[in-house]
Formats: sequence, structure tokens, C-alpha cells
Amino acid sequence: MTASETDLRAGAITQPPIWLRDNCPCAECRDPRNGQKLFGITDLPPDLTVTNVSGTTVTYSDGHVSRFDPAFLEAQHGPDDRCEDAKRLWGSTDAPEHDWARFLSDPEHRADCLHAVMRTGFTLLHGVPAVPGTVLDVASEFGFVRETNYGELFDVRVEATPNNLAFTGLAIAPHTDNPYRDPVPTVQLLHCLSNAVDGGESGLVDGFHAAALLRAEEPDAFDLLSRTLVTFRFADGGTELVTTQPMIGLDPAGRIREIRFNNRSMQPLRLPPDQIAAFYTAYRRFAEIVTRPELMVTFRLGPGDCVVFDNTRLLHARTGFADSGERHLQGCYADLDTIASRHKVLQGQLAFARLRELFDGPGTADYLGEEVTQAQHMLQAAALAESAGASPELVVAALLHDVGHFTGPLTGAELMGGTDNRHSHVAAAWLAHWFDPAVTEPIRLHVAAKRYLCALDPAYAGLLSPASRYTLEVQGGPMTDQEVADFEAEPYADDAVRLRRWDDAAKDPSLTVPPFDHYEQRIALLARPGL
Amino acid sequence: MTASETDLRAGAITQPPIWLRDNCPCAECRDPRNGQKLFGITDLPPDLTVTNVSGTTVTYSDGHVSRFDPAFLEAQHGPDDRCEDAKRLWGSTDAPEHDWARFLSDPEHRADCLHAVMRTGFTLLHGVPAVPGTVLDVASEFGFVRETNYGELFDVRVEATPNNLAFTGLAIAPHTDNPYRDPVPTVQLLHCLSNAVDGGESGLVDGFHAAALLRAEEPDAFDLLSRTLVTFRFADGGTELVTTQPMIGLDPAGRIREIRFNNRSMQPLRLPPDQIAAFYTAYRRFAEIVTRPELMVTFRLGPGDCVVFDNTRLLHARTGFADSGERHLQGCYADLDTIASRHKVLQGQLAFARLRELFDGPGTADYLGEEVTQAQHMLQAAALAESAGASPELVVAALLHDVGHFTGPLTGAELMGGTDNRHSHVAAAWLAHWFDPAVTEPIRLHVAAKRYLCALDPAYAGLLSPASRYTLEVQGGPMTDQEVADFEAEPYADDAVRLRRWDDAAKDPSLTVPPFDHYEQRIALLARPGL
Repeated sequence: MTASETDLRAGAITQPPIWLRDNCPCAECRDPRNGQKLFGITDLPPDLTVTNVSGTTVTYSDGHVSRFDPAFLEAQHGPDDRCEDAKRLWGSTDAPEHDWARFLSDPEHRADCLHAVMRTGFTLLHGVPAVPGTVLDVASEFGFVRETNYGELFDVRVEATPNNLAFTGLAIAPHTDNPYRDPVPTVQLLHCLSNAVDGGESGLVDGFHAAALLRAEEPDAFDLLSRTLVTFRFADGGTELVTTQPMIGLDPAGRIREIRFNNRSMQPLRLPPDQIAAFYTAYRRFAEIVTRPELMVTFRLGPGDCVVFDNTRLLHARTGFADSGERHLQGCYADLDTIASRHKVLQGQLAFARLRELFDGPGTADYLGEEVTQAQHMLQAAALAESAGASPELVVAALLHDVGHFTGPLTGAELMGGTDNRHSHVAAAWLAHWFDPAVTEPIRLHVAAKRYLCALDPAYAGLLSPASRYTLEVQGGPMTDQEVADFEAEPYADDAVRLRRWDDAAKDPSLTVPPFDHYEQRIALLARPGL
Repeated sequence: MTASETDLRAGAITQPPIWLRDNCPCAECRDPRNGQKLFGITDLPPDLTVTNVSGTTVTYSDGHVSRFDPAFLEAQHGPDDRCEDAKRLWGSTDAPEHDWARFLSDPEHRADCLHAVMRTGFTLLHGVPAVPGTVLDVASEFGFVRETNYGELFDVRVEATPNNLAFTGLAIAPHTDNPYRDPVPTVQLLHCLSNAVDGGESGLVDGFHAAALLRAEEPDAFDLLSRTLVTFRFADGGTELVTTQPMIGLDPAGRIREIRFNNRSMQPLRLPPDQIAAFYTAYRRFAEIVTRPELMVTFRLGPGDCVVFDNTRLLHARTGFADSGERHLQGCYADLDTIASRHKVLQGQLAFARLRELFDGPGTADYLGEEVTQAQHMLQAAALAESAGASPELVVAALLHDVGHFTGPLTGAELMGGTDNRHSHVAAAWLAHWFDPAVTEPIRLHVAAKRYLCALDPAYAGLLSPASRYTLEVQGGPMTDQEVADFEAEPYADDAVRLRRWDDAAKDPSLTVPPFDHYEQRIALLARPGL
């Protein structure tokens, strides 16, 4: 690394010594297989200082040395995928709908379905065989079945001749299930086996949206419902479940994170009379919002339909119906954390599959007058990055840096014809669908890095291949002083310069390097965006 | 009910109309089988008022009438059994120990074991067969196994020739499991199949106690750890679990409710540098408390031992050991809510069994000169209470009102010999182990009620049986004016007077009434104290 490149990063490290030491990425400090740290916080010296910083290499008073990826130091906190910030709140919405056969056979459809539950809060699956017990098969594709005192699954069956009130066709107001349980089941599935009654439509309400409306319309009521502890209880001969939680659960930053709304199991509030009165006023306001007809999505579950929904967020309801026939649902519970996990893993697998198609198809074309194909060029760049000990993000950036030649409106051939296809920007924008800036920013800047290096180092231009010297002019030539200063201010300028040097060297027809599949795990792990 | 009795309750109702209406106990408002309410809050009129109160009977502006048990109106909120208030916090403690065979055969032992997990946070079970998979059998007695990406169970196996760092005998610092999961598994079981290594002791730390110490010693640090969101993450090829929660989770009342402490999976904090520094200072303080040797209970798991612990509260650790032999544990997860439920149900069943023993044994003795046995007398009183539509609490009070004759140091025979055995107080104190004041208070006051009625109503004394007239004198005779006033101020005076009248009438040798088992469900449901 040249002195000027080192200088690019000067002052980039703002974190205190203990943060740096605690987050050291070396194999002594982290299990390389799963990234889990191998020490506790008290294993680190209490009076730790940093004794030297060189680029992003940090030496501490205990003698340890950490080599950080610049992208790691720049990263920002991702959203908590369980709080309101990560959701698409809705008043009324078209129900996301998915098909069970496609779910099982088409990973894109499956990913979209999992995403709907995390982001919109539910999906309506069609084509699930109307066979008793099948709801457990569906649940196991979404996560792990949470067995309860109701069993692995429960029956919601309404007889034409009910023997008690609960089995009539009375309407059931919007509510969340099992508020008397802690942990509450975070996902519920309801699978329709038969539905021959008149009426009996299902309804869903976005409880996060309703709570956000309450916060906007009556902040004091919202505040009261998020602070007041309510006890929910269910007791029969064999069970006595009791949980005390607020109706609107917030995280410590005050964001909506969990709704418990169920008058059926709410126990008497034991508070002074004036506090009771204030609570009930707030509770009614919230209930009035929750029951606004325009906030409810309604649909009729037919045999083979299965609705999957977030029970920490959505309230579910049933309209009344006449006792004119058989209606039989089976339900079970599962958990959101596994849905989110499976969605992320699937996204990674999908990204890998999609990118491999590029390497196997258009990537086999000639690389703009070089003696290697496009795919060979990128595989060589990745191999050079890996040999240099680059971070997984930068290895993947090297591997994918030229995909803009065949994902944009203009091809590499047009670039060679004298029209800049802006392939670095095209690639970065396209890859941002899956990857963080640590991957996409070095790619976006890799053409700029050529112009930067040409401006700083006249000898560099002499090292370029003839094709690269030609495209330099199409891309704007060496940078001006102002452009150099702007480039150096980019957080990922350093990585872009490293990538550029591998790019320039990755044109050797005699080189044998690992194939695309070699990078599968790295791609799959990195290509998992938040919601 | 006489006018004076009605007056006793005047002014007892302090709750607003909406609270009363929402908590109406009638069969139209609540499912009699499970107590679940049958309406939503918006089903009640927004402008509801109370138009009449007579005793504890309330009439509303919508025409509905509620008849409340006075005890229900007086009840106070029970504790939340998941927060620090309900726990026995410990610095060091003797490990609760239980035996697996006794757990399966002895309900008292089983109840004590479940209680230990709820209250102390763990128990050490001995005598569990050292057979692979048995941990699932143990878990199913405590609750429902929570399957995860690690399977239904996971193996903690340390080989003599480890192939990587994680399988050496290095010490593992105190931590909670799976902080990257939400819902986190609230209970963990670890079952030892073999342990032939030197060292490798297990340790447990009460995280609630440690957090309470931090609050006392460094309130600002406690505050910071309860407010700062930390992201925990675990990712491998098939899984990516991410959860964002504070290290010290509080309920809205500020009470400690959940600890997540695991440096291994803690992700980099993304905060401004000064906030990072403050957080790490607080984090280290907490970690220093957690690792104080005097706060850790240590024990060695041998084959057949199984430790069951609260993973929302306790941190578990392992001391280092030499790689000199085989050590194999199997673990799995379950949830606290079901442990609490099973404990309550078991307590109810135990109370019923214990009370039935009284009825089948000493209860068969003569009833102090009456023509019925003690058991017949109490069964008649209960039948009269039931016929009068009394609350479950008052029916059970009638059923048990005289158990003080054979549970105290002085018997009924001694009462007849002229020494007051204070059987009403003895019974109330003994029954308070299981029952709320709604049951025990009418019992405690039922002798006083006789003295009260004699003072108010000279004709009443004439209705008493000869034996009862005799004991009246031993018990202090009719009340003075001051005693009358004091009695009337008792919240349960009304119930005591009702109980007294059934008591007086329950001496008919010709009467056939339901047997003790008739009251099983009522007793079992009521005899479930909080922690």
C-alpha cells in the first residue's frame, strides 16, 4: 500500500479502544466458522489503550494487533426487524397471496412469502391440501411448531348444533392469541379444511399501524397503554397460564414492538379508581381504532387456504355467520425468529444462484479485447483479493466488479465502441438489492480508482492493458485535482484502489483460479439484507 | 340479607362503572368453563353509568345487572411471576436438588422442584437415566420442548482430541444462551451422560441478583444497560438469527425481567464514540459483578444429573478442564410459562388431596355433641352455600370452615371442655398456605359472626343448638358495642355472617348432600397461590 493510500484512511477510526479490541476480527478472537467471539469482556484489560494505528491496523497496549476491514468500521446499525421501523404498516392492503405448490418448488416464491409475513405481517396461502394435520407441514416450512397445552395443533370447529356459546357463529372481535403466554407464540397459522357456512369471513388488522394511529391521535392514551401492566389469564382444569405485560409493548427506544389485545382473557385491573378510568378511556380509544372497518383486511378462507400471520402485530377476527353448515379450521403456532432466519438464508442462496447464472451465461463472452473471458477475469480478481487476505466483502466485490457489463442497458461492446456504459455504477445499483455498501461501494468506485491512480501516478497508466487505456479516455481520463480530492473523501476509496489493482492484474490467460462455487458461502452469508 | 348486613358493604365499591361492567361475572358475560369474557370493550356503551348499587349488586344504565363477590372487589393485584419481585434472589445458595424417581412418583416433590425453577431459578435433578435422548423426557415433564435450528436436543460433547477451539476444555464464562433468538428459550436443560474429565465444573449465577447489585452500586450503569439496544447474532450456512434487545430487560414499571448476557454473539455497537465508551464502562461493571466468585454456585454434573434453569435469569458457566477423558452432555430448551402453569395446577391438586385426607380421617369423628360428623357438618354447610348461589370462594370457605378443630394444637373436644381452641383462626392460618383471603377471611370470622349476631339479634341465640350455645360462652359471649363496630369494619364481615347462618343450619342428620369430591375443581382452581 502506498503512503497516499494509507493517508486516505487517516482519522477513519473513531471507536474507543475497547470497542476495537472487543470486535477484533482475527481467528484468535472469533471462531472463523460462525463469527462467535471467543472471550468475555472481563478477559480484556480494563486500562486498554491503542498504541499505534496504521491505516486500519490497530495495535493495543496488551500487544494484540487487529486488522480491520474499513467497511466494518464504517458500518451503521441495521434495523431491528421486529419493531415498527422494519415493517410496512398498512391501513387496508391487498392480502399478499401465495401458492403452496409454488412455495415448495420455487425459491423466489418462497422467499417472497416469508418476506410478506415479516414485512406486511401475513400471507394467504392457497392450494394447501385440505387434509387434517397438514397445517403442521406448512408450519414446519416456516419454522418450528410451538407445542402448547392445546397440543401441536388445535381445531376450530363450529358445529351446526352448538352445545355452548363458544361454538356458535358469533362474531369474534379483533384480538391477538394467547396473551396469557410468555413467550407468546409469535406466529399463528390457520388452515381451512371446510367452510360451508354463510358468513364467517376472516379479518386481519395491523396492530402496529393501529397503535401508531393512536400515538398520532391521542399521545397520552398511547403512553398509558404502553406503560400500564395488564394481566392476562387462562385457566381450566389442567392449565393456569398468567402473563403480565402492557397492551402496547415498546422497545427501550420507544418503538412499537408487540401488541397484546384480548379482552377475553384480560384480568381486572387493580389500580386506584382514577387510574382505572384513565386506562379504560385509552383502552376504548385503541379498541375503536382497531375496529375501524377501513383498517381491516377481510377474506373468506376456503378449503385449502391457510393464513399465516404475525401474532405479535396483527389482530385477527371473524365475522358472524349462520349455523348453516360445517366450518373446520386447524391452527398451530410457530415463531418469527426462524421465519426471518430462513428468509435471510434463502435470499443468500437465491443471490448465489442468480449470480452463477451470470457467470455461466453472459460471463463466458470475451472480455473486451483481453485474452480472458469476463468470468475468468472476475474469478482472477477474486482469487487475487483472497490471496491478499481481503475481507469477505472485498473478495466478493472483486468477484462481481464487472457484472455491470451485462446487467445494464449498455454492454461492454458499446463501451469499446466509445460510449461509457457506466458499468461500475450499473453493477453497484443492481447488486445493492442483495449487498451492503461494503460490497457495492468498491465496485461503484473501481472505474474512478483507475482515473484516480492515473492522475496520481503517471507510471500506473503504463501498466494498463491497451483496452484499459482506451476505455480510460471514454470514462473521462485522469482525474482533475478536484476529482482527486472528492475521490479521497469517499469512505470506500481505499478498498476501490485495492480492487482496481487486482482488476488490472486479472487478465492472465495462463492462470488457473478457483471456480465460482468456491465463493458460495461468502456470497450466501453476505447477500442477506435486512427487511 | 338483613338491612344491617347490606349496610356493612356500603361504600365498598370504588371502581368506575366501566371496570365493573367489563368484569361482570355473570354467565352472559363470561364463559363459565374457563372464565374468558364473551365481549370486547367496544361492545359496552361508551357513556355507561351505574344507576343502582345494592350491597355488591350493581345495575347499569344499559339495564345489565352484575352481582359481585365482595372478595373480588377487594382483591389486589398479584405479582408478575416473571419479574424480580417474585423471585428469591441469591448471591450464593445451596443448589436445590431433586430426585428424578421421586419427581415422577411424588407430587409434593414434583411441586417443590417446579417451584425451585420459578423461584430460585434452577434445580439439580439426580438419578436421570444416563441414556441419550432422556433429556427430552425430562423436558416434557417441565413443559413443551422448544425445537430450534440445533434440533430438538443438542449435544455438548468434548472430545479428548479436539479438532477446533470450541471443543477444547477451555473455561466458558457466565452467559445466557441464544440471546440472538426472540423469543429466547426461557428454560434450558443440560443432562450429563458422561463426565470423565478433570475439572469441568458447572456454575450458575443469578443474573437478576447481579443486575440488582449493579443498580445499587452504579445506578447509571444499570440505567444504560437497560436502555441500550444490543444486537446479538448467530449465522452459519443454514441459519441467520438476529435479535436486538437490551442486556437488562425491564418491565414498564422498571423491574428486572430478562437478562441477555453473551459476549460471544454480541455484535458491534453502532453508536457515537462517547456513548460507546460509556456503554463499555457499564458493561464491564456488570461483567465484573457477574464473575464475582462468591456469586456463583458451582457443582459437578455426573452421569445421570440434569440441571434445569431459567435462561432469562440465570447465567451458566463451565470451569476449564484437561482434555483427559470423555464429557458428554445433552441439552434442550423449554419455556417458563408452562412450568408456572404446571406448578399452579399441581398445587391445586395437592391441596385437594390433603384436604380430602382430613375429611376421610379426622373428619369422620363426632361433631361436638351434634348428631352429624364433622365432615357431614361441613359438607352440609357447603351444600347450603352452593344452593344460595354463593361464589366459589365462599362455597369452599363453608366446606372448610371447621378444619381448625383438627389441624390446631387444641381439639374440638378441648373446646367442649371449656378451653377456646380458636379454631376459626387456626383454620384460616393453616388454609392461607393455599387460599386467598376470600376463602380464609370468612372462616377466620365465622366464630366472631356468631357473637356478632347474638349481640344484634336476641332471637338468633335461641336458634343455636345447645352445643353452640355452650361454646358461645367459651368463645367470649355476645359482642360488646365496640366489638360490633370493629366486626362491621372487616371487609369480609358480610361473607362471615352468611357462612355463619349456613354453619348453624348444617346439623341435620337426615340431610343427604354431595360428597367432598363434588368440590374438586373449585378447590383445585382456588388453591393455586402465586409464587
